[in-house]
Amino acid sequence: MNRFAFLILLFSPLLSSAQDNALAEDAFFIRKIYDEALTRSRCYDWLNFLTRRIGGRLAGSPQAAAAVEYTRRVLDSLQLDSVWLQPCTVPHWVRGEKEQARIVNSRKMGTVELNALALGNSVGTGPMGIAAEVVEVKNLDQVDSLGDSLHGKIVFFNGRMDPTQLNTFNAYGKAAGQRVWGASRASRYGAVGVLVRSLTTRLDDIPHTGSTVYEEGITPIPALAISTRDAELLSLLLREESVRVFMRNTSQTLGEAPSFNVIGEIRGSEFPEEIILVGGHLDSWDVGTGAHDDGAGCVHAMEILHLIKRMGYRPKRTIRCVLFMNEENGLRGARAYWKWSDEQGEYHMAAIESDRGGFTPRGFTADGHEDTFNEKFRKAIEWLPLLEPYGLAFRKGGSGADISGLKNQKGLLFGFEPDPQRYFDYHHTPIDGVDVVNQRELELGAASIMSLVYLLDKYGI
Amino acid sequence: MNRFAFLILLFSPLLSSAQDNALAEDAFFIRKIYDEALTRSRCYDWLNFLTRRIGGRLAGSPQAAAAVEYTRRVLDSLQLDSVWLQPCTVPHWVRGEKEQARIVNSRKMGTVELNALALGNSVGTGPMGIAAEVVEVKNLDQVDSLGDSLHGKIVFFNGRMDPTQLNTFNAYGKAAGQRVWGASRASRYGAVGVLVRSLTTRLDDIPHTGSTVYEEGITPIPALAISTRDAELLSLLLREESVRVFMRNTSQTLGEAPSFNVIGEIRGSEFPEEIILVGGHLDSWDVGTGAHDDGAGCVHAMEILHLIKRMGYRPKRTIRCVLFMNEENGLRGARAYWKWSDEQGEYHMAAIESDRGGFTPRGFTADGHEDTFNEKFRKAIEWLPLLEPYGLAFRKGGSGADISGLKNQKGLLFGFEPDPQRYFDYHHTPIDGVDVVNQRELELGAASIMSLVYLLDKYGI
Repeated sequence: MNRFAFLILLFSPLLSSAQDNALAEDAFFIRKIYDEALTRSRCYDWLNFLTRRIGGRLAGSPQAAAAVEYTRRVLDSLQLDSVWLQPCTVPHWVRGEKEQARIVNSRKMGTVELNALALGNSVGTGPMGIAAEVVEVKNLDQVDSLGDSLHGKIVFFNGRMDPTQLNTFNAYGKAAGQRVWGASRASRYGAVGVLVRSLTTRLDDIPHTGSTVYEEGITPIPALAISTRDAELLSLLLREESVRVFMRNTSQTLGEAPSFNVIGEIRGSEFPEEIILVGGHLDSWDVGTGAHDDGAGCVHAMEILHLIKRMGYRPKRTIRCVLFMNEENGLRGARAYWKWSDEQGEYHMAAIESDRGGFTPRGFTADGHEDTFNEKFRKAIEWLPLLEPYGLAFRKGGSGADISGLKNQKGLLFGFEPDPQRYFDYHHTPIDGVDVVNQRELELGAASIMSLVYLLDKYGI
Repeated sequence: MNRFAFLILLFSPLLSSAQDNALAEDAFFIRKIYDEALTRSRCYDWLNFLTRRIGGRLAGSPQAAAAVEYTRRVLDSLQLDSVWLQPCTVPHWVRGEKEQARIVNSRKMGTVELNALALGNSVGTGPMGIAAEVVEVKNLDQVDSLGDSLHGKIVFFNGRMDPTQLNTFNAYGKAAGQRVWGASRASRYGAVGVLVRSLTTRLDDIPHTGSTVYEEGITPIPALAISTRDAELLSLLLREESVRVFMRNTSQTLGEAPSFNVIGEIRGSEFPEEIILVGGHLDSWDVGTGAHDDGAGCVHAMEILHLIKRMGYRPKRTIRCVLFMNEENGLRGARAYWKWSDEQGEYHMAAIESDRGGFTPRGFTADGHEDTFNEKFRKAIEWLPLLEPYGLAFRKGGSGADISGLKNQKGLLFGFEPDPQRYFDYHHTPIDGVDVVNQRELELGAASIMSLVYLLDKYGI
């Protein structure tokens, strides 16, 4: 608490005595939130169920349906004012049989199996697979330079995530284009398939999936991620000889399927029309069990309502938990929510998304409509003396994909920001399981979000 | 860098234009340190060798000797101005055969094996083990209240680490007394053995060892740690019935053994007599491989010298890396170092110990001699604008056991402080291995310490 005292001192010229009292009361309540979250949270149990008993929850899958039903029941058990399912329609993509990728008859290495995963939305290669010469590129622009020479080839995108970025999400943002747009770009020039280096700063054997998007009008070609170590090997080999790769996947999109966002809320006692949303996305990739991405965000959001109830806190404003469907490969749940919310004439005074894992909290990114953002952000910054003792900071930056479309309602949009160092070790992989989520770190996340919700609710913005 | 800009703004009234330039130069150099550490560190490789190839390094063991030899060779390879071994004498305790602890013939549970580890320095039970009725206490004071009724009993210390402490080290500090002094206290009243709840906030099956100390004049009695889940079970059972436990360990102290601190230094070009020490402790417990405790601290310290060399930085002051022997069960290496340093009339202008694991950096604790500390700490705080962009803060607090005895030289003593949430999941256990150390987090630690070393060296204090 030394640091806290120091901060109060630092900000004291700004405070009247009434403000001093309110500050002390708020500091006390926030301390109670942390005590409660660290001793009586249910979020880790819920995450255990979601991941170990339900598993990966790709939109359209039976597991996604089970996750809808399970979380609805959990929210029901919290005795909220209302719990409902909001329909949406999602693409139903299936991975198919275990992917195959191998270097074929290399002069130096012989035949080498590669650790591969089809990218989400990828078409299949057909049952016989494809084999072709590989051409390495580092980014999308290089594809354009090589142009028609790529005809009949497999394009190997080997862009690296920059390890010197302290915030791994910045490095991810810069490198993700090859995964999202690589297949479309290569297809323009007649390539027959793409291999994409996995998006992680680690060197290991674990492939990372994630969505690829086919631009309209192009011929969709199959796209596989390969592990970073395999990418390094392939790149080394390509310096020495021409390399052929065989790839096979039987992925396909089965059409569309009905699904749901899961929503629970506590109505505000004074300003029920001012909504504070807390959310995550309920779907995950099919490999692994979506523990950090984004089971953690879902159970954070559910835990906020649980904490409010357990602590007997009566919110002035409406606190709504939304578990969005299909963030990973379509954002259909979020779009359905935005449309519905606008049609109702709703006002989201604030929305907080947790979609960066269940690690030790570092703070929140904040975003909003250009007309009102700076003024509102200044107001939020006044709360820093209450949040900094818990290691929390604010910075300007994108909030979360699922809430980004609420910007037109002119509230403040926050992204919960935990420590980012380990997230891309697990992101979109078979090893994203509850065993790599630390219970205390997860609980601290719930407490951090709840602290911000409390301040938003008490003071408005 | 938003936050950095903000901080410069915040502090700008304090800065002249010359200071502005220096600040920009320092900011640039510190950014270079991070780039270097995140791309060309050797610390993770060294930690791999120390843990996977050498293993647990209890003072007096062959592995501890191997670690001395290995780290000396690594330091030799860095082309420092000098590398030497500093002799010390250490206690040579051995765990003996696999410990046994079991609840015997419980009415409700039958016979139940407990996950147990002898505490370091514990005497053995003798080859036949001991069996006795168990009495539960929560702390040392309760032992005094129960007094002579403990005669012939096994005392079960079941104090919990407080999970609501945000800094787990505070919770550890409050609960560790039972492990260190429990056997001595119980022996005063004729108890025949002690069981101690493991020091972790987790509920699991992993026992945590650590040192116990026998006060002079008492009869030493055997002391085993049991896992937190076993402690809960034992406590539940004790509410229902009287419980007998069998315990057996063959631990013994074999006497004293020669060993060494490993030291390497780069002499200062302008003020060689002003020493900046970076250190960790080379010994570890025998279970597990001492990766976070304190392989991480050793490779941090070695990496500082490596970074200085790689970056071609010429320090004005002497930068000395010290890998201390026998922190865990005697502090003999540190005591030998303090004595020798005082005899030489040395002045440690600053010392930084890393002994809280290899997690994401959060800052440094600072301590020092009461005559000079406040003034020197104020000076260090002026560097915060350069360190805060990297998530680093300073707070007053104990530095590190191995450097604490340098306080009389009136320099500043720092403890490197990484995120503390996971440390006590692994501390003193069989699972403290390199697989639970994240490479980026470890490298960021080295960069953080090097940044502070740079500022200390450039400006003095």
